[in-house]
Amino acid sequence: MKNIHKNILHIEPTHGLINDPNGLIYDHGKYFVFYQWNRFKLDHSYKEWGLTTSFDLIHWQSQGSALIPDTIKDKDGVYSGSAIPKDGKIHVFYTGNTKNNGNRKSYQIHAILEKENTFVKQPQTIETPSGYTEHFRDPFISKENDHWQMLVGAQTDNHHGTIAIFTSDDLKKWQYQGKYFENKILDQMCECPNLVTFKDKRLLLVCPQKRQINLDQDISSYSAYYIGKQENNRFIPDSKLTKLDEGFDFYSPQVFQDKSGRKIMLAWMSRMTDTQEEACPTKQFGYMHCLTLPRELILKNGKLYQQPLKEYLDASQTRKKIETKEIKFDSNLCFEIFHFNPSNNSKFEISLFNDNIQLEYKNKNLTFRRKDWSTSKFNTKTFQINEIYQIDFYCDRSAIEIFINNGEKVLSARYFCNENERKNIFLSSHNFKFEIKDLKI
Amino acid sequence: MKNIHKNILHIEPTHGLINDPNGLIYDHGKYFVFYQWNRFKLDHSYKEWGLTTSFDLIHWQSQGSALIPDTIKDKDGVYSGSAIPKDGKIHVFYTGNTKNNGNRKSYQIHAILEKENTFVKQPQTIETPSGYTEHFRDPFISKENDHWQMLVGAQTDNHHGTIAIFTSDDLKKWQYQGKYFENKILDQMCECPNLVTFKDKRLLLVCPQKRQINLDQDISSYSAYYIGKQENNRFIPDSKLTKLDEGFDFYSPQVFQDKSGRKIMLAWMSRMTDTQEEACPTKQFGYMHCLTLPRELILKNGKLYQQPLKEYLDASQTRKKIETKEIKFDSNLCFEIFHFNPSNNSKFEISLFNDNIQLEYKNKNLTFRRKDWSTSKFNTKTFQINEIYQIDFYCDRSAIEIFINNGEKVLSARYFCNENERKNIFLSSHNFKFEIKDLKI
Repeated sequence: MKNIHKNILHIEPTHGLINDPNGLIYDHGKYFVFYQWNRFKLDHSYKEWGLTTSFDLIHWQSQGSALIPDTIKDKDGVYSGSAIPKDGKIHVFYTGNTKNNGNRKSYQIHAILEKENTFVKQPQTIETPSGYTEHFRDPFISKENDHWQMLVGAQTDNHHGTIAIFTSDDLKKWQYQGKYFENKILDQMCECPNLVTFKDKRLLLVCPQKRQINLDQDISSYSAYYIGKQENNRFIPDSKLTKLDEGFDFYSPQVFQDKSGRKIMLAWMSRMTDTQEEACPTKQFGYMHCLTLPRELILKNGKLYQQPLKEYLDASQTRKKIETKEIKFDSNLCFEIFHFNPSNNSKFEISLFNDNIQLEYKNKNLTFRRKDWSTSKFNTKTFQINEIYQIDFYCDRSAIEIFINNGEKVLSARYFCNENERKNIFLSSHNFKFEIKDLKI
Repeated sequence: MKNIHKNILHIEPTHGLINDPNGLIYDHGKYFVFYQWNRFKLDHSYKEWGLTTSFDLIHWQSQGSALIPDTIKDKDGVYSGSAIPKDGKIHVFYTGNTKNNGNRKSYQIHAILEKENTFVKQPQTIETPSGYTEHFRDPFISKENDHWQMLVGAQTDNHHGTIAIFTSDDLKKWQYQGKYFENKILDQMCECPNLVTFKDKRLLLVCPQKRQINLDQDISSYSAYYIGKQENNRFIPDSKLTKLDEGFDFYSPQVFQDKSGRKIMLAWMSRMTDTQEEACPTKQFGYMHCLTLPRELILKNGKLYQQPLKEYLDASQTRKKIETKEIKFDSNLCFEIFHFNPSNNSKFEISLFNDNIQLEYKNKNLTFRRKDWSTSKFNTKTFQINEIYQIDFYCDRSAIEIFINNGEKVLSARYFCNENERKNIFLSSHNFKFEIKDLKI
């Protein structure tokens, strides 16, 4: 059976279930994207790190299992973590999850890529300091001036989300330095902290998680960021907490820096409900979920922009370019980019893939609708945006990322349409510029 | 490009290079075949345990990586080993290979299948006792009456092949009990010892290896067996050392027992030279080598017989049955079985796949020829056999196993012919019975 949902650019597993991107790193010409992987079942009962690599961020080569649960400190899951280079070797840190007689215990574990394809798990591990529950995970390592720093997503004894900080001179011995950041807005747990260092600002990514404490179950979670600074092992925000993505499928982003200094982010492209996972059309092909496209993070005038990589534009060819008030056309099954430049103060309506994806802008409100494949009803989000001068649509076969005003806002969503649902309509109160591009790979 | 060499019944890797079968075990309705696997390159630079499982020994499901090199005790290779059940769990023992500054050091490592898909490596390991070099590997575990026993393939300080023995009450603490068996015939190293316990006899499988001591390189090796008994942690043979297979491609066999008590053996189906590996036609499809078919070992009147599993006959259908002095027919690209029953004292010539495989019997000598795909010349073996009353040919697409006189002798060989080389000829001085069967799976 033909798989019309198989994405072209979005990283998907060869089989099994993918979630968080892990250990993102650029090393000697090669991009490493590790990811949380259940290669046995389409559920979350097993977690290891799978690996895919690329030389150009477009073509990816699956490398299979990279770190698997096989020690007494990670037997119930090789959970998320990050990577950093030191002395010519890639070092990764991840959370080893264990459950013995129902009791969770977490270890922050260090592994070194001692030679090609061989990560050696180091015996020294970090146990959870007092003051926290064992929801203590997702170590994020950065190099500060004269030392290394590890942020760990955490839950306090009182069940508040927070971030713990450790420092080290050698990546081996770590000193606990207290709470890097705490705020009630971090709900009951803060997952996947990430710190991005721009010239004079820091960007702190957090995933606040609401939890049902008695049952030890998660309820909901989302991904957001602060802009601020770091002083004496503490983060001081000078912005309010802002969502990273206004769409339906985005979580646990991770950022790394490439050769040219670009800050590149990938995230898990799913916030699917259990019902949506159950009905996910790729299940019949033995896999589920994907990552977002890598996006460049740019901080300009104190404001964060997320932009698609220029590599994708370089690899694209214009199919059509027009100025009009209305255009109807069919998508093909390739990766397509649409550039849409509305006039000032115009209203517009956009429908993609026979209404599977819809955008409507009027009265300074943008409404985003996505047809839910599990119910055939629409999921809807509306938010205020005072001016829209550009929207770029990056359309893969079952994943779309919509960049508004050069990435001031991004809407990410999975969608699953039939093969014959390829009709697109752009309709506006005023003339707009429009361009369709096809990716040539 | 079509792969006409892809075998139907012989276990092959999805990609990469396979060698020794490891950890063979039947557990709760499922057959586990682990194997030495380089999933990254078609060479021997990386070794882990891959896994494939089956419910019927016919249909196999690849499970990917099972044990990977990721600790300081196995970072340079998860080498061969065996499996045994205890208290409802599968326990495996393997050799962890390490090389630091060019110095080899081996550890015998214990891992427990703590839950589905998760082997947990245990911290206690066995280091090499004094009196041996670090060519100390391939632990084979058996349950004796009141304790567990481990045989380890070894090389003495004086560079003689031997087998070391350990015993344990709990699979955790092991006591070294000296040399299980030593004999100059074991060359410079004895790889992959296996012990099979029949009603009143023991079968000891050994792989004597000739080594170039100064360069620490292997020269040649083969697989053979003794029949004998075990007394006070020592093996006492009452047969001479006999080759297990008289063909071209057979090494490092391993035996396990299934539910019904059958002793079933699989081996690595390769003794390819470097030149043959280089020219191996499956390389273009990203994989190399296969295992032999599982064979049942039967000890009858003090003599060992190797027989194809009855499962294959059960799944086969007769295409043709005839009595004649000559038959010519074409093979198809399915798995085929030929039963050949020559008359007493007859001479015969058999040519399969346009002469790629040839058997000739005259003057009580059987000559086996296989066309070498790297040179197009013939590899030849001749041995005396006083009477031949039956030959069964099990023909896969690029692997053939020939069972003489109900498995008194077996000839295993890889062969690689063109798609149009399908002509077979059986020609004898006297009438013979002949039957062609097709496997229906």
